[in-house]
Amino acid sequence: MGKTNPGRFFEDYKLGDVIRHAVPRTVAEGERALYHALYPARHALYSSDEFAAACGLEGSPIDDLIAFHVVFGKTVPDVSLNAVANLGYAEGRWLKPVYPGDTLRSESEVIGVKQNSNGKSGVVYVRTRGLNQVGETVLEYVRWVMVRKGDLDAPAPETVLPDLASVVAPADLVIPEGLSFDDYDFDLAGEPHRWGDYEIGEKIDHVDGVTIEEAEHMIATRLWQNTAKVHFDATFREDGQRLIYGGHVISMARALSFNGLANAQMIVALNGGAHANPCFSGDTVKAWSEVLDKAETGAPGVGAIRLRLVAVKQGAPEFAYKGEDGKYLPEVLLDLDYWALMPI
Amino acid sequence: MGKTNPGRFFEDYKLGDVIRHAVPRTVAEGERALYHALYPARHALYSSDEFAAACGLEGSPIDDLIAFHVVFGKTVPDVSLNAVANLGYAEGRWLKPVYPGDTLRSESEVIGVKQNSNGKSGVVYVRTRGLNQVGETVLEYVRWVMVRKGDLDAPAPETVLPDLASVVAPADLVIPEGLSFDDYDFDLAGEPHRWGDYEIGEKIDHVDGVTIEEAEHMIATRLWQNTAKVHFDATFREDGQRLIYGGHVISMARALSFNGLANAQMIVALNGGAHANPCFSGDTVKAWSEVLDKAETGAPGVGAIRLRLVAVKQGAPEFAYKGEDGKYLPEVLLDLDYWALMPI
Amino acid sequence: MGKTNPGRFFEDYKLGDVIRHAVPRTVAEGERALYHALYPARHALYSSDEFAAACGLEGSPIDDLIAFHVVFGKTVPDVSLNAVANLGYAEGRWLKPVYPGDTLRSESEVIGVKQNSNGKSGVVYVRTRGLNQVGETVLEYVRWVMVRKGDLDAPAPETVLPDLASVVAPADLVIPEGLSFDDYDFDLAGEPHRWGDYEIGEKIDHVDGVTIEEAEHMIATRLWQNTAKVHFDATFREDGQRLIYGGHVISMARALSFNGLANAQMIVALNGGAHANPCFSGDTVKAWSEVLDKAETGAPGVGAIRLRLVAVKQGAPEFAYKGEDGKYLPEVLLDLDYWALMPI
Repeated sequence: MGKTNPGRFFEDYKLGDVIRHAVPRTVAEGERALYHALYPARHALYSSDEFAAACGLEGSPIDDLIAFHVVFGKTVPDVSLNAVANLGYAEGRWLKPVYPGDTLRSESEVIGVKQNSNGKSGVVYVRTRGLNQVGETVLEYVRWVMVRKGDLDAPAPETVLPDLASVVAPADLVIPEGLSFDDYDFDLAGEPHRWGDYEIGEKIDHVDGVTIEEAEHMIATRLWQNTAKVHFDATFREDGQRLIYGGHVISMARALSFNGLANAQMIVALNGGAHANPCFSGDTVKAWSEVLDKAETGAPGVGAIRLRLVAVKQGAPEFAYKGEDGKYLPEVLLDLDYWALMPI
Repeated sequence: MGKTNPGRFFEDYKLGDVIRHAVPRTVAEGERALYHALYPARHALYSSDEFAAACGLEGSPIDDLIAFHVVFGKTVPDVSLNAVANLGYAEGRWLKPVYPGDTLRSESEVIGVKQNSNGKSGVVYVRTRGLNQVGETVLEYVRWVMVRKGDLDAPAPETVLPDLASVVAPADLVIPEGLSFDDYDFDLAGEPHRWGDYEIGEKIDHVDGVTIEEAEHMIATRLWQNTAKVHFDATFREDGQRLIYGGHVISMARALSFNGLANAQMIVALNGGAHANPCFSGDTVKAWSEVLDKAETGAPGVGAIRLRLVAVKQGAPEFAYKGEDGKYLPEVLLDLDYWALMPI
Repeated sequence: MGKTNPGRFFEDYKLGDVIRHAVPRTVAEGERALYHALYPARHALYSSDEFAAACGLEGSPIDDLIAFHVVFGKTVPDVSLNAVANLGYAEGRWLKPVYPGDTLRSESEVIGVKQNSNGKSGVVYVRTRGLNQVGETVLEYVRWVMVRKGDLDAPAPETVLPDLASVVAPADLVIPEGLSFDDYDFDLAGEPHRWGDYEIGEKIDHVDGVTIEEAEHMIATRLWQNTAKVHFDATFREDGQRLIYGGHVISMARALSFNGLANAQMIVALNGGAHANPCFSGDTVKAWSEVLDKAETGAPGVGAIRLRLVAVKQGAPEFAYKGEDGKYLPEVLLDLDYWALMPI
């Protein structure tokens, strides 16, 4: 009795609290190989030490989204075990590449709380930081979730809503030290299109699709040590289905976006995101992107491109997004808004 | 003709024989990543080099059960190819941590033989040792199996039954050199419960469940180079089902036990174990533990806890174990008795 | 529009063109672990650094077929995206072992073109080379595919057919520098049969079988960055089936051939090969081999053996191959002709 983790309830989150999440994780070549086996990831900077070195890095970093998933996974037992819904992301920034052998841990600061009017749940805002073995922040993002109250009689806290940027400003993007695309090899990268070839408003259908298997999404989700029951236990939901971790769809869509965005190499900011509809085994995931903005950076040959990445499933109309009612179409799985770095 | 391995039959085992098993194996970061992808493994000592170093080790070892599976897998072609049943384990001890880059091989000594009264099979007892590249024994255990006779006319050998300890005595537990839990970080480990918080007789329901997929158990079983047909070939059994390697259930249950036993970090002894009922793809595995005993050790801050780990499948009543007839309930998959190390 | 890769059509291949394929790839311990998890690979030279060192190598190389798949996968977007059929292989040679940490890239030279009489497609011959980070060719092979024309009005090129050897001559086999089987440990390798024990014409049934899962073939195929839609997207073919990458069947059959050919350690040449029939999830793959030839080499204790490796599926008669009409039986999946190195 009492040894297992009951998770936190809404009333357990106090503004300003910093939660040190368990279990630190050393990430290495094994995680990289598995990532490329689970997703059709082909961005050259994360595939080849030589290519990365030619771009001024010390070697090929661990994929940005591996870093994100590892950091995120640690927060699940403390943040989302009793969550009703994952409501949003903001102000995500990648601050430092993660290399094989680095050890990551996570901590989250409670930056906002608001009890719902029904008195049964509330919204919690946390700013999560991923730290490496020398204490540097490699990644940070804000996430807000709706969490059940454990004790309905617990008093409502004073409402505090954080002031969140709708988009990470180009000036706030952190370019990895030494990065240069001056000697970028477009042949090896796989496509000739450079930053200047993309126009704001341009949409790209990434064409390829992947049908999702139970074994694959579970292998991925466990690798990030995200152990939420709903992803693994077919007896948990009444319909006998295992809900696929939203991050699996993010990685699948990002990898599919290679076909048309092969040179959008590094993700440097997450402006926002919504898991529009649930994804299940047997769904075939496809993706399309829209260029939302472009910006210059101070690094040699490096431009920034702001992209909307939309994952859809079988049956979706071309560039499926929202209906006339402003709601996501039922075939839309993911709507992600991010900044990436690209050769100018 | 005659090139493939027919396996050994009962009459081929001679008391005192030492079988050097094929194929040595270098284990590294890839095996670690796969282990964490196949099981919801979260014990911090095996997840983070930093955490392990803070516990006095040179880095994060390869999981104890990876070492066990690798050593065990090598014995299959020589010991269990013609086995009718895997009857038991005893006197298992982990003697030295295995680190990425170590190369393991196995050898087994025949320590007991007893022909069955039906004259068609017999029981063989072997003591298996796992050795590293410098010849140190990293792991040893006794296992006994029932094996068919190849030649029914072969004379029955003199019956020799080894004298096996029912439990590894606390004094015989080998604590890894340098291990200290004096600076143990309970936040990073994931739970606050220490050795002193567990009482003999206490039972813990580990709550979480994982539904088993064919692809996952085959990936795991192959990784340990256990190539028994029954796990891989759907045409082998009349019912078209692939039997899941018992070690897959062991690892799944051990990983699930994190939730309630996050600080039972290292397995140091295997007192006994039974694969109570077969497990098939589609089964949802859950686990519970019972504290059987506790002991002090000479290492700083390190206590030993003896646990019964029981894996069950969907439909099992709470703490399902044996019926009034003394037999395992049909939902019980595994009954494992082991010693682990925990911060005092 | 225009950002995604449409692939090359028949008329886009010009004799003498050299295509530098995207995306270079650093291969390491993670790829090795995954290979052993996806296939029942047990050849000791690729499993143990110690065993490989005892054979004169600097450590255990990346499996020959990992190198092949990585090199091959890169050619898919440039060579086979609009291919109707993969017609054949010839003159394949492994020139240098690939070690963990090496980075591979590929390039292909167009060495033959022949438009089909229907005017709608043609056959393209390419010689593909895999290069490591210092520019050494580690692997080369010729492959020919039938490719659709994009513009039916494009003029037919002058027909050029390369002069291809039907078998790589023993004198052209490249033995890895330093390789010696003088101190070969047959116990650790798993079988006692040496080069001298095999007779030309001898056939070996490898006995074991593996039932194929969707998750596994997709994980494998993605790992080699082969992103052909037909392997991943269940909505792509009218029958809703995902076609299994032929290389998955090659690796499965080769791994199964351990049982009877455990000492055929290194693949050094690919004389030819045909993917006789498609393979789908649910098929149970088995394999048999025939000794086609034997040759001595200049390396100490090292012989060469030429093998026909045939993969079949459930229902195949013993040593299933071709019918009286000279066509492959419907249960035959693969017919591969290769040279391997074996202790004399």
